[in-house]
Amino acid sequence: MWPDSLAFGGDYNPDQWPEDVWNEDISLMRAAGVNLVTIGVFAWSIIEPEAGRYDFSWLDRVIDTLHAGGIGVDLATATATPPPWLIAGHPEIKPVTADGVRLEFGSRQGYCPSSPIFRDHAVALVRELADRYGTHPAVRLWHISNEYGDHITECFCDVSQEHFRRWLAERYGTVGALNDAWGTRHWGQVYGSIDQIPAPRRMPGPANPSHLLDWRRFSSDALLELLRAETSVLRDVTPNVPVTTNFMSMFYSLDYWRFAAELDVVTDDAYPDPADPHAHLDAARNYDLMRSLGRRKPWLLLEQAPSAVSWRPINVPKRPGIMRLGSYQAIARGSDGALFFQWRAPRFGSELHHSTMLPAAGTETRIFREITVLGTELAAIDEVAGTRITADAAIILDWDNWWALDADESMPSVLMRWRAALQPFYRALYHAGVTIDFVRPDDDLAEYRLVVAPNSYLLREADANRWNAYVAAGGTLLVGPFSGVVNGDAHAHCGGAPGPLADLLGVRVDEAWPLAENASAAIDIAGSVDTATIWTEWLRAADADVVGAYTGGVLDGLPALTRKKHGAGSAWYVSYLPVDAGPVCDLVLAACGIVPAPDGIERVERSDGTTSYLFLLNHGDTAVDAAAPVGEDLITGAVSAGQLRLPPRGVAIVRHGAAAAAATRGDNR
Amino acid sequence: MWPDSLAFGGDYNPDQWPEDVWNEDISLMRAAGVNLVTIGVFAWSIIEPEAGRYDFSWLDRVIDTLHAGGIGVDLATATATPPPWLIAGHPEIKPVTADGVRLEFGSRQGYCPSSPIFRDHAVALVRELADRYGTHPAVRLWHISNEYGDHITECFCDVSQEHFRRWLAERYGTVGALNDAWGTRHWGQVYGSIDQIPAPRRMPGPANPSHLLDWRRFSSDALLELLRAETSVLRDVTPNVPVTTNFMSMFYSLDYWRFAAELDVVTDDAYPDPADPHAHLDAARNYDLMRSLGRRKPWLLLEQAPSAVSWRPINVPKRPGIMRLGSYQAIARGSDGALFFQWRAPRFGSELHHSTMLPAAGTETRIFREITVLGTELAAIDEVAGTRITADAAIILDWDNWWALDADESMPSVLMRWRAALQPFYRALYHAGVTIDFVRPDDDLAEYRLVVAPNSYLLREADANRWNAYVAAGGTLLVGPFSGVVNGDAHAHCGGAPGPLADLLGVRVDEAWPLAENASAAIDIAGSVDTATIWTEWLRAADADVVGAYTGGVLDGLPALTRKKHGAGSAWYVSYLPVDAGPVCDLVLAACGIVPAPDGIERVERSDGTTSYLFLLNHGDTAVDAAAPVGEDLITGAVSAGQLRLPPRGVAIVRHGAAAAAATRGDNR
Amino acid sequence: MWPDSLAFGGDYNPDQWPEDVWNEDISLMRAAGVNLVTIGVFAWSIIEPEAGRYDFSWLDRVIDTLHAGGIGVDLATATATPPPWLIAGHPEIKPVTADGVRLEFGSRQGYCPSSPIFRDHAVALVRELADRYGTHPAVRLWHISNEYGDHITECFCDVSQEHFRRWLAERYGTVGALNDAWGTRHWGQVYGSIDQIPAPRRMPGPANPSHLLDWRRFSSDALLELLRAETSVLRDVTPNVPVTTNFMSMFYSLDYWRFAAELDVVTDDAYPDPADPHAHLDAARNYDLMRSLGRRKPWLLLEQAPSAVSWRPINVPKRPGIMRLGSYQAIARGSDGALFFQWRAPRFGSELHHSTMLPAAGTETRIFREITVLGTELAAIDEVAGTRITADAAIILDWDNWWALDADESMPSVLMRWRAALQPFYRALYHAGVTIDFVRPDDDLAEYRLVVAPNSYLLREADANRWNAYVAAGGTLLVGPFSGVVNGDAHAHCGGAPGPLADLLGVRVDEAWPLAENASAAIDIAGSVDTATIWTEWLRAADADVVGAYTGGVLDGLPALTRKKHGAGSAWYVSYLPVDAGPVCDLVLAACGIVPAPDGIERVERSDGTTSYLFLLNHGDTAVDAAAPVGEDLITGAVSAGQLRLPPRGVAIVRHGAAAAAATRGDNR
Repeated sequence: MWPDSLAFGGDYNPDQWPEDVWNEDISLMRAAGVNLVTIGVFAWSIIEPEAGRYDFSWLDRVIDTLHAGGIGVDLATATATPPPWLIAGHPEIKPVTADGVRLEFGSRQGYCPSSPIFRDHAVALVRELADRYGTHPAVRLWHISNEYGDHITECFCDVSQEHFRRWLAERYGTVGALNDAWGTRHWGQVYGSIDQIPAPRRMPGPANPSHLLDWRRFSSDALLELLRAETSVLRDVTPNVPVTTNFMSMFYSLDYWRFAAELDVVTDDAYPDPADPHAHLDAARNYDLMRSLGRRKPWLLLEQAPSAVSWRPINVPKRPGIMRLGSYQAIARGSDGALFFQWRAPRFGSELHHSTMLPAAGTETRIFREITVLGTELAAIDEVAGTRITADAAIILDWDNWWALDADESMPSVLMRWRAALQPFYRALYHAGVTIDFVRPDDDLAEYRLVVAPNSYLLREADANRWNAYVAAGGTLLVGPFSGVVNGDAHAHCGGAPGPLADLLGVRVDEAWPLAENASAAIDIAGSVDTATIWTEWLRAADADVVGAYTGGVLDGLPALTRKKHGAGSAWYVSYLPVDAGPVCDLVLAACGIVPAPDGIERVERSDGTTSYLFLLNHGDTAVDAAAPVGEDLITGAVSAGQLRLPPRGVAIVRHGAAAAAATRGDNR
Repeated sequence: MWPDSLAFGGDYNPDQWPEDVWNEDISLMRAAGVNLVTIGVFAWSIIEPEAGRYDFSWLDRVIDTLHAGGIGVDLATATATPPPWLIAGHPEIKPVTADGVRLEFGSRQGYCPSSPIFRDHAVALVRELADRYGTHPAVRLWHISNEYGDHITECFCDVSQEHFRRWLAERYGTVGALNDAWGTRHWGQVYGSIDQIPAPRRMPGPANPSHLLDWRRFSSDALLELLRAETSVLRDVTPNVPVTTNFMSMFYSLDYWRFAAELDVVTDDAYPDPADPHAHLDAARNYDLMRSLGRRKPWLLLEQAPSAVSWRPINVPKRPGIMRLGSYQAIARGSDGALFFQWRAPRFGSELHHSTMLPAAGTETRIFREITVLGTELAAIDEVAGTRITADAAIILDWDNWWALDADESMPSVLMRWRAALQPFYRALYHAGVTIDFVRPDDDLAEYRLVVAPNSYLLREADANRWNAYVAAGGTLLVGPFSGVVNGDAHAHCGGAPGPLADLLGVRVDEAWPLAENASAAIDIAGSVDTATIWTEWLRAADADVVGAYTGGVLDGLPALTRKKHGAGSAWYVSYLPVDAGPVCDLVLAACGIVPAPDGIERVERSDGTTSYLFLLNHGDTAVDAAAPVGEDLITGAVSAGQLRLPPRGVAIVRHGAAAAAATRGDNR
Repeated sequence: MWPDSLAFGGDYNPDQWPEDVWNEDISLMRAAGVNLVTIGVFAWSIIEPEAGRYDFSWLDRVIDTLHAGGIGVDLATATATPPPWLIAGHPEIKPVTADGVRLEFGSRQGYCPSSPIFRDHAVALVRELADRYGTHPAVRLWHISNEYGDHITECFCDVSQEHFRRWLAERYGTVGALNDAWGTRHWGQVYGSIDQIPAPRRMPGPANPSHLLDWRRFSSDALLELLRAETSVLRDVTPNVPVTTNFMSMFYSLDYWRFAAELDVVTDDAYPDPADPHAHLDAARNYDLMRSLGRRKPWLLLEQAPSAVSWRPINVPKRPGIMRLGSYQAIARGSDGALFFQWRAPRFGSELHHSTMLPAAGTETRIFREITVLGTELAAIDEVAGTRITADAAIILDWDNWWALDADESMPSVLMRWRAALQPFYRALYHAGVTIDFVRPDDDLAEYRLVVAPNSYLLREADANRWNAYVAAGGTLLVGPFSGVVNGDAHAHCGGAPGPLADLLGVRVDEAWPLAENASAAIDIAGSVDTATIWTEWLRAADADVVGAYTGGVLDGLPALTRKKHGAGSAWYVSYLPVDAGPVCDLVLAACGIVPAPDGIERVERSDGTTSYLFLLNHGDTAVDAAAPVGEDLITGAVSAGQLRLPPRGVAIVRHGAAAAAATRGDNR
């Protein structure tokens, strides 16, 4: 069963090297503690050099050699880049932009997601690989395709357009139902048949937002169909080998809830920018999402960079300690390992300047030293593999909402986007030491003390009813601005925002009141001043307590932050986007009995129910004496008696009883 | 006859609502004072759901219902968006960009202006509508198409290219004449036949400026042909119903002089940006233009937003008072009413977040309250309908010049554009309280004390001769920089700038001397320092008085501002672009005997020749005691004895005798 | 033989004027000192108004008239813009962008470089011209095409793609060799045949860098083939008339080393921006390059603007004195003359606002006065024609390296580009008064005391070996950062940077350490602090002297600037990009015995071996008393006794003995 230990390793491309290098690789991998490598991701044109002729000899030798060296294999299905002969024979596979440009071969992953020719060839290849390697003892995991949606998230060719129409016909049945759902009576778009409906290519002016929303859903589903086509073969041929595809953190274009449901293991490619001093905050958020996508099972950090990447305009390296700290951060938040892209510095190609575990300058480099230290450490903390994480608070994430909100035209403000709305709330909870799950809007919320919807612009009435029931049962709900505006078809809720949340929150929005760029507004919360940016609202609070009110400016005196109690529960509405959601979150956390731990140390606890492991991570540049439970630091063996000294960029993992863990979490329910 | 009262209302889309909502609409409209609504603008796909099959039943009921409710109809010809079946059957209707991208259906108004198929179908629809509703008593006005040129101002498809060639053949007769007019001997472009001439699609480098100028003329004419095709049907079938098409304020792509000549009523869609503190200055300018386009007849503000729009990146709402003030500003400058886009908040589509007279949150909103107040007030000042405005000063506006100047490549400075040149002069005259007409360069100027040409880069010799005669007859002419450079073919005038104005102005331009971005130059005017930006010139004043000279910098000591007297008249040349044209305008106003009223209150007077109505508008945030004639404020009934207190964003309309009006204007000729 | 005197004149377009203007032109040219004009550059559509029908009558008269006036002719082959009939008959000649947009006729020079139809017609025209005018006594020079690569540097049409494939087949022989050279095993791009290889049109993600590099080489060669096709005819028909094509200074897209090898005279079109206070530094660099491209023979400044150009967004004029100073700067650095674009102000076309020798405002203008002064002066210094320049230092320029470094994607930092790397080193040497030659990486370096490679990202092993030998023989080599990274195929050198320079420099680069935008790093050089921007490196200096070390920041204490001695020679490595390379260059100059002359006066010496001419140029706005050899100023006739007073923007040319010249250069080897 997967996993049985912490994985350490990375992508490995022996197909780019003479075989005499392979033995040196295995030897250095063992020295560095590598136990799992990903192979074959871009090997299609090597495995199948012409249609139907397969050459597995080299791959046989690679897998056997790795196995002999005690290194497991995450085996790619090799479908990420279709080979030149397939493109040359079927140029219609090449994807087309909204402008009608057919994108050329020469990079990677350039295929129309809806192409039946591409899919048929890919599935045939997967079946060959599954037949040949499905029972090889080295194969630990199937790695399907690569980073679905990287480069190509949508295709506007005629084949895709036909696919879209079939998808619409299935969704709506009749063109009349579609016309109703899209509101085509606006701007004279009433369709006579589904065959008249175009892909939303470049248009003279703004598109119908319902059209765009369905296009986003379709485009995500088109790639999902490819994933399902591959998993279907693999589950048929090799039911005992777990499958994954590598995600790209919090990614706009794909509804990862739907993708994750197809997988045995969620895996992530994580590339925090070393030039961004807040990168670890976004990394924590992404790792919480990965754990949540897998429904709290351990996930796996499948790719990260040892130092710099090569695809940003400026690729700043990771200074010493950052790679180790980031690896532990992923494990703290549920990853059962830490893998890298990639093992050995390449000789050619587009990733020549991407850092590697084994740099071009060899084993005497600081990177290889740091890699080896980490590999050694991970082997010593293997017992945390398989342990899980419990969260008191949840944040609602709904791709439909993200797509509707980030539509980029015809909205009150282009600055009011999902990431902008999420950021202050996630960061405030992070700084308060609160561990977060992400949930779907229709998930069962009962186990959470606090549920935050930073923004729910698109909100289905049925989901609103669920949230109502959650609060009625004693839960605490915090709803962010510009919520409850449209339903699942992107039609306005009757009576205006917050639509189906109006009774629950006790407020009505007269008008969205977006702020000009760089403008701000002040809110008085019990004498303290909070600052809004990007967004405020002309709000009426007919049936709610006004906790904070706008002060100064056009909205002076109007309610800004409200609370309405429902039995033991309460529903809060914040009508503005706070620069720092700390003050709002402090009030809400206090109300639901979660005790914050805001000492600047990142703390996450993994547990098997009996033994717990509290991870303490110091992202700062100065040492900190941090409160810790009584227990032993797995890394150093030091014993904590309530406090541990964490050096700059330092990590500790304190093993202790589960009861202590609960206490550390401030758990007193 | 149109108009017989002040119009109040807006766009109304009952086709987007169940019929049971219609009665509530009529009832609320009456409560708010609505007396005119625009209907059917985007109804083509509803009225004609398939080729040649018309469904007028719902429209019959809508018009009858409105009529029964006492509400007049501005009936659209519904040709703004061709229906999906027409596009699907004739994809060549879809317009093509300069890059060759054929723009997709899915927004609105996406048609090639030169498409005969589109035109034939549109004209057939117009005839059906005219036949059916032309005599309906509710129909007060024909609303042709919608905002010609919004989204699509030009099309580069082969059909358009053929149309362009026909247009050129008609203009030039022979390819030889065209080669001469375009100067094709430059850069080796001598055409062998008109069939060889392309639409100016994307090119490797700069285009021939004469080619571009004719393309602009043609593209404006191509849409003008569509307007004429519709008016031709309407004048034939319903000669007694006035026709309009809604303009988009001062709009680059269409020569509104030519469009306005086809209309009975000029109408404008005005969307000043509430985030722009100077928006009311540009609004005043636009309203003066609308009045001038209609040759001083009352025009109509056909669309404005009650609060925010939804098509800017950030759509800031109008704070309380701004909508009312802006409505009065339009009426002050000649609009016989104030209409809005749109009546009721929509449920779907691209304009979901555009403010409406009746917001989603209902009648208890501040917007609906402000709307109702305004509707009530307008009913009480109905007597100003039909009155007119007299101006002492005129500004020359010539689309040919605008197109030639704003060519965007191969010019001395991309910053030297029509709007940039106009702005300081219009604003200075506005701040001086001078009411402005816009005129064509070949208009009779005799009635104006002052004529300003902020820029006349393109100037025909015949027009220069007219200006000469105007000055010789006692007029005052102020010519701005970079004028008299090219003739109507965009060929340089002999001897350099100011070409045919050289004798009139008494100056010669050695060299244009554009300033680097953010640079400025100083000019000494009788000891005061004026500041130039964007533009200066190396000027010689052989035969003119030097009123101001450059001081410091490369041009130190050279003439900058000159005056040459011709009998009672005088011709001024300002060779630079002033940051603030106030000092220059003060000199010129004094010279022509116009007394400024620079107290910060916007004053415009409407009159029927006997009774006059002085509008006073306070755009400031503080109350002002403003000088006013003896008379009665139409809104409050208060009597002015020479002064009126205007609250912040306040308005007064003082009814008084026409003689008093003349005195207030400082009229002493 | 060319040249026999200093050329003065410009482009002349009599085909745009009635013949009665020609005589006025000749007369004014003579007054201004003009002795050479370029004619016919864009005359194809006039000379050949339809296929195969030639009209030379006007050109006969023009050339005869000029000859009668004593003015020589630089006769264009007129192939720069194909005529409309050729484009209309063969639209496939129009070039295609990477996005697939076929660029329209209507500008200039819009042809696919690989089009056989274009080439055949061009060559036929050249033969006609050569037959007719090759022996005309007025014809001094053939001007082939115009500014190759202006506007179109590459074409992505199918014809070009086929040409690219032929070029690849010739370069690599087999697809296997190509796959190896391009590293197509990366990202699954192994080609089955060369027919599968696309032009690098727009792709979904980053392209293979070797693919891009070969595309750059091919695109340069495609235009080179056109040049060769024309020179081939001309050398055949008129072997005694020298040929040129006008270069565009330091131009990215064309390997001018390969182009210059085809020419008898290197000519340059130089357009320093008057708004740039450092423009004269880049001009000096460009002129040094032109001289170097011609292997030190005199070259010719074929185009410059008398004042403003018309193709920048803002075209600031040249204030008085700048045109003269810039003309002398070109002559100082080896130009045998100064020509302009263009003679007479045009009446029409895209260059209407480009300044001219004879402005629209006529002969009373300051420009015409300055032109006439210069023409008169040049006639008096004719003796410098044909003299040459000797340099002590050289900078290595390799277009392959430029193309590889500036690839714009998949690199450590987009800011680390050739121009950015070159600039601090060229400027530091300029300010030190050191005259620079540019050399190829495989040139013989023996004659230089100092060789600088500001960046050699792409470095062939054979070239590294040459540099090694140069140092071993006593030379001084200064290598800039990010050098020795890849070989000629853009494959990484084994062991990491600096690859084949590792032993010579005695250093190893662990990691490139690019700096975030606007960040900087400090380097301690013997107690002084130097500042790096854009680029630093994690460097090890196993076998070199550490002359400077990083101080502060992540790299604190690591080596930054190193020197390794080899016998009498030494090799320096600077691992960062200095904001000001002055401190580094000072150390290196001292080490190789070049004495700097940093008094702010630009000094360059031309000599015939016996008599020397020291040019002194004051680019400042204040007068300077400058050290000068004993001799006579050719311009004023003043005698220098060791010092000369140079007014602001002033020039002197001191004639003296060659021995004195050497002393002034600080020549003591």
